[in-house]
Amino acid sequence: MQRIPTKAELIEARKKLIPYIHYTPIFQSKAINQIAEAELFFKAENMQKMGAFKMRGAMHATLQLSKEQQQKGIATHSSGNFAQAMALSAQLLGIPAWAVMPSNAPGVKKAAVASYGARIIECEPNLKAREAALEQVINENHCTALHPYNDYDVILGNSTASQEIFEQIENIDYLISPVGGGGLISGTALAAHYFSPQTKVIGAEPKLADDAFRSLECGIIQAPTNTLTIADGLRTSLGDKTFFFIKEFVDQIQLAEEEEIIAAMRLIWERMKIIVEPSSAISLAVVLKNKDFYKGKRIALLLSGGNVDLGKLPF
Amino acid sequence: MQRIPTKAELIEARKKLIPYIHYTPIFQSKAINQIAEAELFFKAENMQKMGAFKMRGAMHATLQLSKEQQQKGIATHSSGNFAQAMALSAQLLGIPAWAVMPSNAPGVKKAAVASYGARIIECEPNLKAREAALEQVINENHCTALHPYNDYDVILGNSTASQEIFEQIENIDYLISPVGGGGLISGTALAAHYFSPQTKVIGAEPKLADDAFRSLECGIIQAPTNTLTIADGLRTSLGDKTFFFIKEFVDQIQLAEEEEIIAAMRLIWERMKIIVEPSSAISLAVVLKNKDFYKGKRIALLLSGGNVDLGKLPF
Repeated sequence: MQRIPTKAELIEARKKLIPYIHYTPIFQSKAINQIAEAELFFKAENMQKMGAFKMRGAMHATLQLSKEQQQKGIATHSSGNFAQAMALSAQLLGIPAWAVMPSNAPGVKKAAVASYGARIIECEPNLKAREAALEQVINENHCTALHPYNDYDVILGNSTASQEIFEQIENIDYLISPVGGGGLISGTALAAHYFSPQTKVIGAEPKLADDAFRSLECGIIQAPTNTLTIADGLRTSLGDKTFFFIKEFVDQIQLAEEEEIIAAMRLIWERMKIIVEPSSAISLAVVLKNKDFYKGKRIALLLSGGNVDLGKLPF
Repeated sequence: MQRIPTKAELIEARKKLIPYIHYTPIFQSKAINQIAEAELFFKAENMQKMGAFKMRGAMHATLQLSKEQQQKGIATHSSGNFAQAMALSAQLLGIPAWAVMPSNAPGVKKAAVASYGARIIECEPNLKAREAALEQVINENHCTALHPYNDYDVILGNSTASQEIFEQIENIDYLISPVGGGGLISGTALAAHYFSPQTKVIGAEPKLADDAFRSLECGIIQAPTNTLTIADGLRTSLGDKTFFFIKEFVDQIQLAEEEEIIAAMRLIWERMKIIVEPSSAISLAVVLKNKDFYKGKRIALLLSGGNVDLGKLPF
């Protein structure tokens, strides 16, 4: 049985997070508006601390732990931004952190996690090995495991990005969020539900990893059949909590091809002069792909992160 | 005989430009502050219209023309950002523009100029051929040639970036500007002179193109001996007007090696998630190179532009 967090919980999450996160700016581009024939507002979570919205969820979940739990530390398994977010959250609170990372994770991601002071435990690059390694860390250190997305406190933390959006701009017709595990879009949808009910929330997902799209179609969580999408933050499956929020509050999920994601990413880099990762660019990709649908509307797009390996760009 | 524009002229330039340019944001990075052991404020002219501060000077010089002159159009020879700035200025005012560009100018730059509606005249890649082609354009079309930097109206336009800085932040110890032809640093120095006289203005120049440094040392304008620096916006020589302002108002010029420019550029991309060109990154390069000099100070850095060819990155 799923529960729906209250408006008061969302407001409380935001209040708690204020000292620890950036209130990120919103950017606009006349050139991109002209191409889209709509008014686009880009929420720059790529400029969030550690370079992604994940900081909001990780920090909020950590703050929700008791002092005793915090002192024993936190742990997660992640190959991406969530490990960095957990590591920085621990550093800000002066508590220990452990990150289980697959042996094939990019060196730049491991270096970032290590730079925030977390200990890295390497494991084989499969889910079973990752879960086993995390369990061992927890048994040995009596620390608390944080789930990157299928967790109410993480989702509440993530909701604060859109709470800011609704404070920064009014009369948003559509709010578009990338969908990976569903943690960002769940928080986004909750924020819209309470703070801007007339705004429709749309999920953006790579065609190559269309598991959320298919899950919504058949009503049961589907696993990704292919995880080769360039949008590496969107390769994960939904969780039961995030799937519930998507079913309850998300209007629809739209898909984009790989080359559409890359073209949208390039457009953002060249026209807006900001660095976003492919998982962020997908929101613009679905707007440009569904031009008639969005024509003339006011659309907010969550640029979820900006952590790319500059040595491995797709253009 | 050189003249020094008055404070009233600077204020008037700013007032005239307001409808045509972006008031650009200032960014800070805790990580970079920690590395520099100083407080850095980055003025994001990479987010200016057409992606560089050049828009300010080009637009202001165009606005200073009579209506008759404007209707006949404007022209320039430039391989870089100034041609784009002139083209966009003309587009905003609905007047014709001609850009003389060397045949070996990057396709991306030609495409940008063309996208703003200017006509492109190709010529051999040497100064003589460029000047001859420009003269022909002027004779044929009776339009007005704009000089990219050695012009009071261009310099006055450029001064508005720093006028904004002094409104955005207080108590700046140092203000660092890249030095190419000297148009940006001249406007910068004038703005500091009138609006923040306690702020010292420093020029940042590539060691490979250290002509301004040498000019200041010997008191006579020196030509660049080498124009292979990656900071392609800084390959030009000073003009008599810009050299005068540098001698009069600039505290000193500091040099950076190529690899220091590239490292600073990468640091800005990775940590601040914004796209700057090498000519912008040089300001951070000289801060990191002269750490003892800048330690503990409040430093504003002009990020002059963000127009890079994403297919040809140095990392």
